[in-house]
Amino acid sequence: MTTLVEYADASAEVRAVYDDIRTTRKTDFINNFWKALANHPATLRRTWESLKQIMAPGALDPLTKELIYLAVSATNQCSYCIASHSASARAKGMTEEMFGELLAVVGMANQTNALAAGRQVPIDPQFLAQE
Amino acid sequence: MTTLVEYADASAEVRAVYDDIRTTRKTDFINNFWKALANHPATLRRTWESLKQIMAPGALDPLTKELIYLAVSATNQCSYCIASHSASARAKGMTEEMFGELLAVVGMANQTNALAAGRQVPIDPQFLAQE
Amino acid sequence: MTTLVEYADASAEVRAVYDDIRTTRKTDFINNFWKALANHPATLRRTWESLKQIMAPGALDPLTKELIYLAVSATNQCSYCIASHSASARAKGMTEEMFGELLAVVGMANQTNALAAGRQVPIDPQFLAQE
Amino acid sequence: MTTLVEYADASAEVRAVYDDIRTTRKTDFINNFWKALANHPATLRRTWESLKQIMAPGALDPLTKELIYLAVSATNQCSYCIASHSASARAKGMTEEMFGELLAVVGMANQTNALAAGRQVPIDPQFLAQE
Amino acid sequence: MTTLVEYADASAEVRAVYDDIRTTRKTDFINNFWKALANHPATLRRTWESLKQIMAPGALDPLTKELIYLAVSATNQCSYCIASHSASARAKGMTEEMFGELLAVVGMANQTNALAAGRQVPIDPQFLAQE
Amino acid sequence: MTTLVEYADASAEVRAVYDDIRTTRKTDFINNFWKALANHPATLRRTWESLKQIMAPGALDPLTKELIYLAVSATNQCSYCIASHSASARAKGMTEEMFGELLAVVGMANQTNALAAGRQVPIDPQFLAQE
Repeated sequence: MTTLVEYADASAEVRAVYDDIRTTRKTDFINNFWKALANHPATLRRTWESLKQIMAPGALDPLTKELIYLAVSATNQCSYCIASHSASARAKGMTEEMFGELLAVVGMANQTNALAAGRQVPIDPQFLAQE
Repeated sequence: MTTLVEYADASAEVRAVYDDIRTTRKTDFINNFWKALANHPATLRRTWESLKQIMAPGALDPLTKELIYLAVSATNQCSYCIASHSASARAKGMTEEMFGELLAVVGMANQTNALAAGRQVPIDPQFLAQE
Repeated sequence: MTTLVEYADASAEVRAVYDDIRTTRKTDFINNFWKALANHPATLRRTWESLKQIMAPGALDPLTKELIYLAVSATNQCSYCIASHSASARAKGMTEEMFGELLAVVGMANQTNALAAGRQVPIDPQFLAQE
Repeated sequence: MTTLVEYADASAEVRAVYDDIRTTRKTDFINNFWKALANHPATLRRTWESLKQIMAPGALDPLTKELIYLAVSATNQCSYCIASHSASARAKGMTEEMFGELLAVVGMANQTNALAAGRQVPIDPQFLAQE
Repeated sequence: MTTLVEYADASAEVRAVYDDIRTTRKTDFINNFWKALANHPATLRRTWESLKQIMAPGALDPLTKELIYLAVSATNQCSYCIASHSASARAKGMTEEMFGELLAVVGMANQTNALAAGRQVPIDPQFLAQE
Repeated sequence: MTTLVEYADASAEVRAVYDDIRTTRKTDFINNFWKALANHPATLRRTWESLKQIMAPGALDPLTKELIYLAVSATNQCSYCIASHSASARAKGMTEEMFGELLAVVGMANQTNALAAGRQVPIDPQFLAQE
């Protein structure tokens, strides 16, 4: 397990990112993912900057983005990411029913991805034309 | 490549599923995925029945469900599924900007899934308590 | 695309492997996978030796082993491997019905793998005791 | 971690599925996977119905189906599924030697899947013709 | 297939990224990946900026970084990425022998990843202490 | 969890492999991976022989090979393999800065693999010609 860099032990560069996380998220809580990335400050800063931009409201709302994040994390079997993004999604309004439907879609997609591959299904010309 | 079962050559059991696909989707078009699954009628019927239930409007709307489907399919590198569900998502209202944001989130999630694994980040007690 | 090393152009080391493939499989046909690996003769030899041992009859029969190989290849979306191991499995007796059931199991497993991860299901003590 | 729905706290819809699991499997034991899915009764019912159909004896026997399930679960690194389906496979007759051979094939397939991708091996015309 | 945005049709924001790619790489060639990302300029710019920083010489030299990129891409079965990063790696000095050894390691790692998962091997206390 | 075969309980065949691991690695420590594989002696021997050959110095040095191994293991979310190969890489000279850069590349590759798939980017003719 990687060392977790606490605020008290952090360099100025790392503290600046932690401060921005706290301000942006309106909470004092810094979760372990960032404390682990802080062992490589350039990755900490770049990952946080990208995440902040990507997860901001846009053509898709923040909750939809969290659902998409969870879908990828469940597919990849990433326990940490499932735990942290379940919490974020719930904080942004995901209900138990929405979570149940999300996982039903994720399960279905993983199933049909394997079926399409196993059958080597050729792409319909209509799909290529449409795009 | 698997044989594609056309309507004219299909058994009554397969035709019943094709007919339901056409009625449900309000189109004559049956895409190759179903024509390939039709080589094993029990799988064709069960997969279609499950998909019809899962993708119907619920706590999540049909477009959000298509975005989740696409997120899984891009993560799994399933070309057929990306092509078919891009088409479905566009038909249900996905704009170019929404597609761009979807892929940005999918890319970010795949990146941080690998970072969290590589650093073996322990799950915060707060996330376990919260659920 | 990698160069495919034909018998006529192969070194003595590569030819020895090609000859053993032909003898073991009782056919003159060398499929492209081996011609591609031949660019790195040590990998060609080691991969062939391992495959020959692993796929030989044992506690599991050769057809069951091919079905397992196909299950992994469909899960990983490896087109080449699906094509080549479908052919091998059919040559060893896989019927259309067996292929349909195989894919149904593979699809189901990919589905429930994602559901178990997404729900972070704790392992039952009974399963740990049992092993 | 998701809530586990015990029989005493379950709705009539969930209890009906639990009862069918017990009858079908001839055991009182309901493993955590189902107790977790019970948070979304529609997914619980659909997943159980599909699993019951798919894992029943057919052109492939139940043990072969468990081996295929295990192969997918090991490939996807799904700890829960490996634990539960190892137990099921042993209950259906998987010996230690069969398990060893199964994993040897799974390891080999994951290895050659990566080699075929890395070398971008073109599919042999013979494989396309054969199907 | 996504539209490929050519320089002549690109907005000022996209052209600025294309110009920087050309300057940084000392070539006029813009490969399709960037032309596809250009449909979402924010993703184009962020991805290019991140890639430029991450792949620059550091504690690891640029060729080692390309080998790592290729290892991930072969594991994920990403054809486009294997093709483009094979070309980059060769341009930075990857020999045929290095490529062969790279793939041997990638294949071995994919094999033992599945074996470790399938056997549910507990992490040695020595590994946890060491970090 | 699989039984771990200790030296005292091992057959002559297994002991011979354990002895060779100790001699090759110049340490008495046998990590759990090998003790787990020892349940199937043929897999133990074959896996060790392959690993010994593949990880030996060649056109790529042993540290570079460990970095590649780690890249695959983080991509596949294999906790055991990440723990054991992080330890090996550190023993062979991986610094904290090198580990940070390695993970940055792994994260980037996983991100762009998903983007290239999601956009269905066609391979540039230049990449096909080059090889």
